[in-house]
Amino acid sequence: MLTRREIAKHNTKESCWVIVHGKAYDVTEFAPEHPGGQKIIIKYAGKDATKEFDPVHPRDTLEKYLPSSKHLGPVDLASIASDLQDEETVDELELARLERVKHMPHVSQCYNLIDFEDIARQTMKKTAWAYYSSGADDEITMRENHAAFRRIWFRPKVLVDVSKVDLSTTMLGSSSSVPFYISAAALGKLGNPEGEVVLTRAAYRENLIQMIPTLASCSFDEIVDAKQGDQIQWLQLYVNQDREITRKIVQQAEKRGCRALWITVDAPQLGRREKDMRSKYDQQAASVQDNETPVDRSQGAARAISSFIDPSLSWKDITWFQSITKMAIVLKGIQRAEDAIRAVEYGVDAILLSNHGGRQLDFARPAIEVLPEVMTALRQHGYENKIEVYIDGGIRRGTDILKALCLGAKGVGIARPFLYAMSTYGETGVVRAIQLLKDELEMDMRLIGATKISDLSQSFVDSSSIANHSVVPKDHLSSQAYDKLVGPPFVKSNL
Amino acid sequence: MLTRREIAKHNTKESCWVIVHGKAYDVTEFAPEHPGGQKIIIKYAGKDATKEFDPVHPRDTLEKYLPSSKHLGPVDLASIASDLQDEETVDELELARLERVKHMPHVSQCYNLIDFEDIARQTMKKTAWAYYSSGADDEITMRENHAAFRRIWFRPKVLVDVSKVDLSTTMLGSSSSVPFYISAAALGKLGNPEGEVVLTRAAYRENLIQMIPTLASCSFDEIVDAKQGDQIQWLQLYVNQDREITRKIVQQAEKRGCRALWITVDAPQLGRREKDMRSKYDQQAASVQDNETPVDRSQGAARAISSFIDPSLSWKDITWFQSITKMAIVLKGIQRAEDAIRAVEYGVDAILLSNHGGRQLDFARPAIEVLPEVMTALRQHGYENKIEVYIDGGIRRGTDILKALCLGAKGVGIARPFLYAMSTYGETGVVRAIQLLKDELEMDMRLIGATKISDLSQSFVDSSSIANHSVVPKDHLSSQAYDKLVGPPFVKSNL
Amino acid sequence: MLTRREIAKHNTKESCWVIVHGKAYDVTEFAPEHPGGQKIIIKYAGKDATKEFDPVHPRDTLEKYLPSSKHLGPVDLASIASDLQDEETVDELELARLERVKHMPHVSQCYNLIDFEDIARQTMKKTAWAYYSSGADDEITMRENHAAFRRIWFRPKVLVDVSKVDLSTTMLGSSSSVPFYISAAALGKLGNPEGEVVLTRAAYRENLIQMIPTLASCSFDEIVDAKQGDQIQWLQLYVNQDREITRKIVQQAEKRGCRALWITVDAPQLGRREKDMRSKYDQQAASVQDNETPVDRSQGAARAISSFIDPSLSWKDITWFQSITKMAIVLKGIQRAEDAIRAVEYGVDAILLSNHGGRQLDFARPAIEVLPEVMTALRQHGYENKIEVYIDGGIRRGTDILKALCLGAKGVGIARPFLYAMSTYGETGVVRAIQLLKDELEMDMRLIGATKISDLSQSFVDSSSIANHSVVPKDHLSSQAYDKLVGPPFVKSNL
Amino acid sequence: MLTRREIAKHNTKESCWVIVHGKAYDVTEFAPEHPGGQKIIIKYAGKDATKEFDPVHPRDTLEKYLPSSKHLGPVDLASIASDLQDEETVDELELARLERVKHMPHVSQCYNLIDFEDIARQTMKKTAWAYYSSGADDEITMRENHAAFRRIWFRPKVLVDVSKVDLSTTMLGSSSSVPFYISAAALGKLGNPEGEVVLTRAAYRENLIQMIPTLASCSFDEIVDAKQGDQIQWLQLYVNQDREITRKIVQQAEKRGCRALWITVDAPQLGRREKDMRSKYDQQAASVQDNETPVDRSQGAARAISSFIDPSLSWKDITWFQSITKMAIVLKGIQRAEDAIRAVEYGVDAILLSNHGGRQLDFARPAIEVLPEVMTALRQHGYENKIEVYIDGGIRRGTDILKALCLGAKGVGIARPFLYAMSTYGETGVVRAIQLLKDELEMDMRLIGATKISDLSQSFVDSSSIANHSVVPKDHLSSQAYDKLVGPPFVKSNL
Repeated sequence: MLTRREIAKHNTKESCWVIVHGKAYDVTEFAPEHPGGQKIIIKYAGKDATKEFDPVHPRDTLEKYLPSSKHLGPVDLASIASDLQDEETVDELELARLERVKHMPHVSQCYNLIDFEDIARQTMKKTAWAYYSSGADDEITMRENHAAFRRIWFRPKVLVDVSKVDLSTTMLGSSSSVPFYISAAALGKLGNPEGEVVLTRAAYRENLIQMIPTLASCSFDEIVDAKQGDQIQWLQLYVNQDREITRKIVQQAEKRGCRALWITVDAPQLGRREKDMRSKYDQQAASVQDNETPVDRSQGAARAISSFIDPSLSWKDITWFQSITKMAIVLKGIQRAEDAIRAVEYGVDAILLSNHGGRQLDFARPAIEVLPEVMTALRQHGYENKIEVYIDGGIRRGTDILKALCLGAKGVGIARPFLYAMSTYGETGVVRAIQLLKDELEMDMRLIGATKISDLSQSFVDSSSIANHSVVPKDHLSSQAYDKLVGPPFVKSNL
Repeated sequence: MLTRREIAKHNTKESCWVIVHGKAYDVTEFAPEHPGGQKIIIKYAGKDATKEFDPVHPRDTLEKYLPSSKHLGPVDLASIASDLQDEETVDELELARLERVKHMPHVSQCYNLIDFEDIARQTMKKTAWAYYSSGADDEITMRENHAAFRRIWFRPKVLVDVSKVDLSTTMLGSSSSVPFYISAAALGKLGNPEGEVVLTRAAYRENLIQMIPTLASCSFDEIVDAKQGDQIQWLQLYVNQDREITRKIVQQAEKRGCRALWITVDAPQLGRREKDMRSKYDQQAASVQDNETPVDRSQGAARAISSFIDPSLSWKDITWFQSITKMAIVLKGIQRAEDAIRAVEYGVDAILLSNHGGRQLDFARPAIEVLPEVMTALRQHGYENKIEVYIDGGIRRGTDILKALCLGAKGVGIARPFLYAMSTYGETGVVRAIQLLKDELEMDMRLIGATKISDLSQSFVDSSSIANHSVVPKDHLSSQAYDKLVGPPFVKSNL
Repeated sequence: MLTRREIAKHNTKESCWVIVHGKAYDVTEFAPEHPGGQKIIIKYAGKDATKEFDPVHPRDTLEKYLPSSKHLGPVDLASIASDLQDEETVDELELARLERVKHMPHVSQCYNLIDFEDIARQTMKKTAWAYYSSGADDEITMRENHAAFRRIWFRPKVLVDVSKVDLSTTMLGSSSSVPFYISAAALGKLGNPEGEVVLTRAAYRENLIQMIPTLASCSFDEIVDAKQGDQIQWLQLYVNQDREITRKIVQQAEKRGCRALWITVDAPQLGRREKDMRSKYDQQAASVQDNETPVDRSQGAARAISSFIDPSLSWKDITWFQSITKMAIVLKGIQRAEDAIRAVEYGVDAILLSNHGGRQLDFARPAIEVLPEVMTALRQHGYENKIEVYIDGGIRRGTDILKALCLGAKGVGIARPFLYAMSTYGETGVVRAIQLLKDELEMDMRLIGATKISDLSQSFVDSSSIANHSVVPKDHLSSQAYDKLVGPPFVKSNL
Repeated sequence: MLTRREIAKHNTKESCWVIVHGKAYDVTEFAPEHPGGQKIIIKYAGKDATKEFDPVHPRDTLEKYLPSSKHLGPVDLASIASDLQDEETVDELELARLERVKHMPHVSQCYNLIDFEDIARQTMKKTAWAYYSSGADDEITMRENHAAFRRIWFRPKVLVDVSKVDLSTTMLGSSSSVPFYISAAALGKLGNPEGEVVLTRAAYRENLIQMIPTLASCSFDEIVDAKQGDQIQWLQLYVNQDREITRKIVQQAEKRGCRALWITVDAPQLGRREKDMRSKYDQQAASVQDNETPVDRSQGAARAISSFIDPSLSWKDITWFQSITKMAIVLKGIQRAEDAIRAVEYGVDAILLSNHGGRQLDFARPAIEVLPEVMTALRQHGYENKIEVYIDGGIRRGTDILKALCLGAKGVGIARPFLYAMSTYGETGVVRAIQLLKDELEMDMRLIGATKISDLSQSFVDSSSIANHSVVPKDHLSSQAYDKLVGPPFVKSNL
C-alpha cells in the first residue's frame, strides 16, 4: 500500500500524483489537458485532493477519463487522516458559522422559499454560498430578476367557483403536478454531500420534472439511476468544443430516457462573479510588496469548471442536434424576440427565456420582462402555437409563477431556491420548499379566480410597468465607494 | 362540582373535555366538525381553553352549537386558578412590553391614525398584533394600499368661501356624519377584552356607520344590542358552505335592523399571513433532529377560524341572496372593471373595491388604483349612477379619504386604525381617532376649496401616476437574504 | 408699584392679570376675544407672559389693542426676577443644545443654504425650530417642494461669451439685483430677538426686495422704519374677518411706501403641523389615568396666531381690494391653471404659485410642478404677457432658481433659508446666504450659457419628468409604525 | 547660501520670498499676477511652499515664467528640514489613514474599477481625495453619470460564433486596442508623486490613447517625453484669455506629435465643489466671534488653478483654431443636440458629450442620456457620418462602454478611475484597471453576441427609460438637514 510520504514526493509539474477517495493517481500527463486548468491540479500535487475534487467531479470521472495505467492504487488511510488534520485550520467566522448550524430553525419554520435562502446564507460554507449565490458584476440583473416581478400586479376575478383547483400541466409532452420544474445548477455537492440525487428523490416525491445539469457533482448515470417509477428527467447541455463528446452525451441521455435536451445558448463563456472570486482569494499569498505582478490567483468555481464550453456554437449547430436525437430540443437562454422567431423557424420545440440566473451578463433583462416582447412577436408572426415558451430567473413565490403563466409561459424553472433548501435541510427541505410553492400557488389561483392552468391569461395581470427601468436594485459597491456630503463640522469641544 | 383533576383525565381525541369560563364541556364528538379544525381543540383537551376561546368565539357559541347533553356543568374554581398559574411563563420580550404599557403616551398625544398604530405595535400582545397587522406573503399589497395614495396629488381651488364645511353624506340610503365607516374586522377581543361593542359605542358617539363582522368576538346580538338611538349598522358576511346557516344569519340581521349586507367575495379561502403564522410557532416543540417530518404546526389565527367559508360562491348565489332579503346588497372585494360592470348587471346596490386589507393576495392592486379603472368603465357603459362604489385599504389620513371621493367613491371603509385605537385606548381612543379624521377632513376640504361632499370631483386631483408600479414597498425578506457586495478587504493588522 | 404677589392673586378667568415687559395688564375682558384663543392667556394668569408674548406680538400690540384703562402700570422688577428663576428648568436635551451653540461652525463654513438649515436644526430652541421647520401632515409636500426640482435637468448651451453675467431684473415694476426676494414668514423673533428687521437690513445690503408678513413679530412700522435708501418692500396680507381692519392695514402699507400687496389665498385656515404641535405638548400635564377626556392641549404656534383669518375670502373681495389701493395686487397661493386664468380675468398684476411652504395641505403639488401647467394655459389663452408669475417653495440652490426662471417664472420667493440664516448667524448669516445664492446663480448662468435673465427659456431644461409621482419623499411615521418581516429565528444558544 | 532665517523675514506682501525645491525666489512682483491668486502665495511668504507648489505646477514653471533676476539661489537644507518638522502635525484621522495605507489589499484583489475607488477613498490624502472625488453642488450629476447607465438594459443575441472577439478600433484616425482612452484630469501629482507620466507609461503598455491635460502636474514636455514607440497622445485645452499663449501651446502640441486638440467648452469658469472647499478650510483660523466678516478662506484646488480660463470663448474662436493647427479638433463638453449640429456645420472633427465629470453644473444631464438625443438629431440632418461622437462621465464597467457604443459613440473617455488606480497602486494599478476593463469588455461582447466593435448597434439595448428622471441619487445634505417625524413619545420610566 502507498504511503502519504511516498506520494508527497511527486509534488511538481514534472511528476504529479494526487490522492482522491483513498486512491493515488498519476496525473502528470493529464494535468495540461485538465478542462479546469493545470494550476488547480498542481496545487494539490503530492496531496489529498478529495475535498476539492468532490463537488466538481462526478464519482466516475477518474475511471472514465484517466487511463487505468495511471491508477496507482489505494493509500494507507492512517496517513491520510493525519494529512487532513494538518489542513484543518478553522477561523473565527467559520466557528460562528458552525455555531449557527447547531442552532438552525426547524424546517417547518420556513414559510417560503426566501426563508431557506436566508438560512443558507448564514449556515453554508463560505465558498459554497459564494458559488451558488453570486451573480455577474454588480449583481443588478440577478436581483432584478426577482424585482421585476414586483412591477406586475394582479387583476383578480371574483365570484368564480374555486372549490377545486388543479395545478397539473403538460410540459414538452410530459405531465407534471405543477407548472414548474427543478432547473439545472452545477456543483450540487458544494451544498450537500449527496449532490443532485437529493433533488431527484424530492422531485419524485412531489411529481416534478428535474433537469439534469452537465456540470453536476454526481455523474449523469448516478442521477438517472436515482429516478423512480415514471419520473421525468431532462438534460441541460453545455456544448463541448469536441462535438463527438457532445454526441456521446446526447445519445446516452436519450438512451437513458431523458425526454428533452436543453441546449444552453447564453453561456459561450462562463461569467465573472466577483463574490465567488473574492471568496477564493488566498489571503496568505498576497502582500503589498509584490504589487508589480498582478496575477489573477482566483477565478472562482465558475471559471474553473467551464473551459471546455464552445464559444463558436451557432444556429447551424441546432440543425446538427436535430439530426442526432429525437428528444425535444429546447434553446436555453433566449433573450430577445428576434431570436425567438428564429428558433421557431429552425423548428425547435421550445425556448427558455433566461439570463442564466443573472450570472452571465449584468444588465441582461429579466426573462419576465422579455416574455411579453416575445409573446407579442410570436403572435404577430402567427407562431404562438408553434413553440413552447419557458422562463426562469428570480422566481420565489407562487405569485411569480402565476404572473409568468398569465403572460404566456408554459412553465417556469427554479434552481437556486431548491439548492438552498437542499443545502440546509436536505431532501426534507426540498420537499418542504416544493410543498410551500404548491400551497401558495393553489391559494393564489383561488384568489385570482382560476381553477386550472389553462384558465390563466393576460387579463389577470397589469404588466404595463414591466419595462420601466427608472429604478434598479441598489448598487452596493458604488454606493459604498461614494463619500457622502456632510454639513459644516461643529468645533470640537476641549472637554 | 367537577374538579380540575377529573377533567384532566379526558385529554385525548377519544375523550375530550375542555373548560371554558368555569364550565366543562364534552367536545369529543364535536371536535372533528370544529370549523377551526380539530387540532386546536385537542391541544386543550383536559385543560382550560378560555384564553384561546375568547377572542375567537362569541360568548353564546357553546350554548348555540353544542347540544346541552354535552354541557358538564361548573368546575371548582380553585383548581382552575392553579392551572392558570402553571401556564403563566412570561418571557423577557413580554416583560418589556408590559413596561411599555405602563408608560404609554397620553391619548391626546396621538395626532393622527398612524400614531395609534405605532403605539399598538409597541404595546399589544404579540399574537394579537400579528393577527391584526399581518398581510399576505411579503406584505407588498398591504403597504402599497397606503403608498398608492401618495401617487395622487391635489389641485386645490382658491378664493372659495369655505367658512362652512359640511362633511355629512348618505351611504346606501342612510345618513352619516362623514363619508367613512367603521369596517368589519375579525376577533375584536384580541385587542380589547370587550370586543366589537367598543366600536359600536364610539360609532354612536360620532355618528358613524358600523359594519358588523361575521367573525366578531362578540356575538351578533351583543353588537346589535349595544346600538343606541337610530344608529346604523351593516352586516359583513362570509358565506357558509351550509346555505341554511347563511340564510338564518341574513334574515336575523334584517330582522335586527341591519341596513345592508356586505357579501365578502375576495376570500374563497383566507390568506396565509406569515407574520401571523410565525407568531404562533411553538419554539419548544421544534428541534433540528425531527426534520424528517415537516408538519405545519401553526396556521395563524386567520386560517384557524375560516374553514367554513364556501369557495364555490359564485354569481348565481347573488340572485339567491336577492331573493332572501330586502337589505341593500353590496359585493365586498371587487378588483377589476369587468366585475364591476357585471355587478351592475346583476342589480346589486353597491360594490366595495378592496383587496381585503392586503391580507389575501399579494400584488392584488390597491382599491384606490382600481377605482379610476372602474369609474371609467361605468361611465363608458352609462352605469355611473346605477351603483354606489366604495373602497377600503390603506386609508390613514383625511387626504386619503378626499382623494378617493374625488375619484368617484361614495364612501370609504376603515378597519385596522380603529382596531389599533381600540386596542390601545379603548373607546376613548376610537373616538379620538374619529375626531382626528374629522378634523383633518374638514381642514382638507377647506384647503382644496370644497364645502360639501358633493363638491368633490376629479378636477381636484392629479392621479396620472396612480398605475405606475416602478416603485413598490421594500421587500424586507428578500433584501435581508441578499448578501451585499463589498469592496476588497484590508489586511488585518497584527496589533 | 405693583408687586408680583398682588398680581398672582388675579390668576383666574374671572380676574386675569398678566405681566408683559415689566408692566401689568388686566386682560379679563379681552381674553375671550384674543385671536389666539383664551386658553393661552389663562395659562399665564397672574404670571409673567413676556417670553411667550414676544415672538408672537409686535411691541405695540398692547398699546394698540388694549384700552388704556386696562394698563395697570409697572411691576416691581425684583419680584419678577425671582419669578423667572422658578421657571428655568433646563433639561438634558436643552443643555446639549446650548453646548452646540457654543461650538457652532464659523459662518464662512456654510457653503450653501442647506448648511444653515442643518446648523439651525442643531442649535435653535426646540419650539422655534418646530414652528419654522414643520409642515402639514406627513410633510410630504414640504419635502417634495425641493425634491421636485430634482426632476428637472439642464440642457446647457456652450461657446457663448459669458464673460459678463447680469443677474438683475424687474419684479412688479421695481428693480432688484437678483430674481429672488425675501418672502414673508411669521414670528421672526422666535429665531432672532430682533425679529424681521434683521432681514430688512440684509435686504438693503444686498439690494433685494423684502415681503413684510402680517404675522411679523416686529410691528409693521418697525419693519418699514428699518428700511434704508430706496429699498423696496411689499406687504403680505392675511385678510381679517373685519374688513375695516384690513382696509386700515392696506392703506397704511400704501402710505408707508409698500409697492405691492400679496394677498394670501391658500390659507383660509392655518394648517395642522404635527411637529409643531408635538413640540408644545406639556408632558407633565398628561397621565394615562385621565384618558377619558381627550382634550387638545397643544395647537402649535401656527393655530394660536391665526384665528382671525377670514375663511370666506373669495373672488369678489379681489375687486374690493382693487378699489381701496393703487398698489400692485398679487394673489399668493394659486395652485391650478384654472385659477391663474381667472386671476388674469380679474385683472390682478401677478400670481404666486405656492403651497405655503408645504405647511397647509399635504399632497398639494409643488409650485415648480404647477408652473408648466400654468404657463401652458396662459399661452393658450394669449395671456402670457398679461400677468407676472412667481413661485416659492423648496428653493435652496441657484439651479433651483434658474429652473423656475427657464420655465417662465418672473422671480422666486425664499423664506425658510433666510430664517435659518438669521436664527444662526443673524444679519451676517442672511447676507452670507444671499451672497452664496448670487455666487451660485452667476456661475450657473455662465455654465448654461446665459448672460442675462431675459436669455432664459424653456429650451435650457428638460422638465418632462416633472409630474411623475412614482416616487415621493419617505413617509417616516408610516414606515416606523410598520413591523418589518424577518426570516426564521435561530434557536437561542444556552451559552 | 541663504538660510531659512533670512528668508523668513520676507514674509509680507511688500517683500515676499518663497522656497521651492530647495531654492528661494522673490515673488513680490509676480504675486499679484499669479493665475491662482495672490492670497495662496502670501500664505507661504517667508516659508517653504514646495508641498503646495508641486501638485499644481509643472517642474519648469518657475524657470519659464519667473525672470531669472528673481531666482535667489539655493537654501541651506538643514534649516529647511527643521522648518518642515515644525509643520508636521498629524491628526488622528491622518494616523488612521496611514495605518490603512500599510494594510492595503493586494492589487490583484481589485476586481473592478470601483474597487480602486473604494481603496482610494480610504487611503488617499484628504485634500487629494477631495479634489479628485468632488463634484458640483450636491453631486447629483456626478453620481447620475454612472447611475444613468443603469437605466439601459441589454438585448443579447445568442448562437453567434464568438470564439474570437476583437476590441480594437480607430479614434480620430488613430488605432487603439480598445474603444476607450485615458481622459485628461488635472493635478496628477496630488495622487502620485510622479504625476501624469504614470498614465503615459500604462497607456503604452496597454496600447491606449492618452489625453494630456492643460492643468497637468507634469509639464507638457515631460508627458510627451514619456511616450514610447508610436504611442498616440491628444491635448486637452483650456483656452487662455491671452490667445498668444494659447497659440503657442497648440502649435507646440502639434510639433510634438499630438494628434488631436480637445478644446474644453463646458468650463468658462471652474465649478464650485463643496467637498473640495470644505477639505481646505483652516479650522484654526475660524472663530465664532468674527462672524461679522464672512470671507471665503477656501476655494478648493479647482478654483485656485483656473483663473486664466477665458469665459468669452465662443463659436468664432473655433474658426481661429482651425486656422492655426492641422490637428483634428474636438469640442469637449457638448450637452445638447443643437450644439452638436452646429459643431458639424463649423466643420469640427468630433464632439465629446460631457458634463465635465459632474464637476461643473449640477443637474447637467449625463452624456449617456444626451447621446441618443444627439444621434437622432445627426441622423435627421443626414450628418451621422460627418462627425465622431465621444462621451465621458460615470464609466466604470465594460457594460457601460458597450452601452455607449451601441447607442452610437465612437469611443469613451475615462479619467477618475485611472487616477484612483494610480493613486493607490501606481502604474501597476493603472495597468490592472485597464486589463480588468478589457476582460469585462471582451466577455460582455461575447455575451451580447458581438465579435467586433462595428457589430454594435442600437438593437442590442433597450434605452427607453434613459430620460426618466423620477429617481435621482440621494441628496445627502438635504436629507441630513431634515428633522424626521416621530411617533408619540412614551413616558420616561423613573427607574
